[in-house]
Amino acid sequence: MPLGPRQLAALAAADIARVTVSEAPHVVVISTGSELVEPGLSRSRGQIPESNGLLLETLVRQAGGDVVRRVHVDDGGSAFRREIAAATTGGSRADVVITSGGVSAGAYEVVKTELGDALRFSRVAMQPGKPQAFGVLPSGTLVFGLPGNPVSAAVSFDVFVRPALLALQGRSDLHRPALRLPAAESWHTPPGRRQYLPAVIDRSDPARWRVRPATPGGSGSHLAGALALAEAYAVVPAETAVVEPGDLVEVLLLEG
Amino acid sequence: MPLGPRQLAALAAADIARVTVSEAPHVVVISTGSELVEPGLSRSRGQIPESNGLLLETLVRQAGGDVVRRVHVDDGGSAFRREIAAATTGGSRADVVITSGGVSAGAYEVVKTELGDALRFSRVAMQPGKPQAFGVLPSGTLVFGLPGNPVSAAVSFDVFVRPALLALQGRSDLHRPALRLPAAESWHTPPGRRQYLPAVIDRSDPARWRVRPATPGGSGSHLAGALALAEAYAVVPAETAVVEPGDLVEVLLLEG
Repeated sequence: MPLGPRQLAALAAADIARVTVSEAPHVVVISTGSELVEPGLSRSRGQIPESNGLLLETLVRQAGGDVVRRVHVDDGGSAFRREIAAATTGGSRADVVITSGGVSAGAYEVVKTELGDALRFSRVAMQPGKPQAFGVLPSGTLVFGLPGNPVSAAVSFDVFVRPALLALQGRSDLHRPALRLPAAESWHTPPGRRQYLPAVIDRSDPARWRVRPATPGGSGSHLAGALALAEAYAVVPAETAVVEPGDLVEVLLLEG
Repeated sequence: MPLGPRQLAALAAADIARVTVSEAPHVVVISTGSELVEPGLSRSRGQIPESNGLLLETLVRQAGGDVVRRVHVDDGGSAFRREIAAATTGGSRADVVITSGGVSAGAYEVVKTELGDALRFSRVAMQPGKPQAFGVLPSGTLVFGLPGNPVSAAVSFDVFVRPALLALQGRSDLHRPALRLPAAESWHTPPGRRQYLPAVIDRSDPARWRVRPATPGGSGSHLAGALALAEAYAVVPAETAVVEPGDLVEVLLLEG
């Protein structure tokens, strides 16, 4: 169990001055994509701001991990190879590497090109987050290859990476507590894929919280704005085509 | 609103590289009591381990505050006076001073003795947390004089100090979201005082979370162990004498 203020106080009150804790996993975050430019720098046509590095770094930190390096590389391959080599050898060896982008079926998919034999590339029946890659390198380093768009990366982190980071710290409560709440409005869900919808909680009735999409009507995985508003993910089974008001929906409450 | 991973990512995706944020309030934590000894050091008869300093420091940090000094002083007065002087003058001036202990009616109540004219001492109709002190010193520093026992200090922090720290950061959502859950078992509550009971959530039915005391039957404000287990406070109005199974109870979910 994590030691927060109340646990530390109880230990101190019991005259326990030292406790053995697990070491924070060392994590390297690599955003890939030649189209990405650091926020605030000038961009040319077709370029977009890089946001996944900051997203994943702060999510890792919230999950108790220690981000030892965060870097953005292009699709050329040599920079990516250099980063993987640095993360898997010597004193700076990482426990976990998280990449974003480069796992789809396009021509310049750097993660797929460079680690095609080392990782398993899957299409997962979820939305967002369909393209995923995972594998263990010879160094023992776990590699999570997340999709590149921000909402997909955020959801994929929660579904696949966060439980692994907690397990590496000896935690047994790997999943966010699921709460079942009635839907406050109707929304459509993707056919045949489990939906993780950025959602907000309607608390107007404290005895009956309800859940609604963070952005009305929209479930597009490109909507980073929905992420900023979200305080939960609504999880809808693949078999469900539409959520009606009052339907009980599984809700994962997010922190901060 | 606080900027967590998803908010930072949305800002970056919108090409916003710099944002103006409020400064973290500078906080000094002073535990008082000649009977207190740092955990792990040898104690003589009548002495107990000091735990409130660590409790309050970590609670302040969770609430976004910056603990610039944490110290434990005896009941003699001179060390306490020195700390208050340092916290209210010069470059190290604190925005907030939080003390624990020394606010009751006993003979050696150092906060009451030293700041009796500057603070207002109240008996609040709550349990735990009856004796409270608060005031603003000429330097503009807010002083919260919390009771000394650990559960009282933790609850008092949540009820009185945390909202102030959030307001100092420009936050408008000052209170934890209140959820109303049915009680999973019966418990007695103190007559004429609002109860803040360390509680756990029974999640066996995801569609109907229930609340129960963190320690069976016990609401003693000295039970630091209850704090370690608590993931919520159950808040019961002063008029209620007993909570019966199924009664809807206001629940404040705690972080970490």
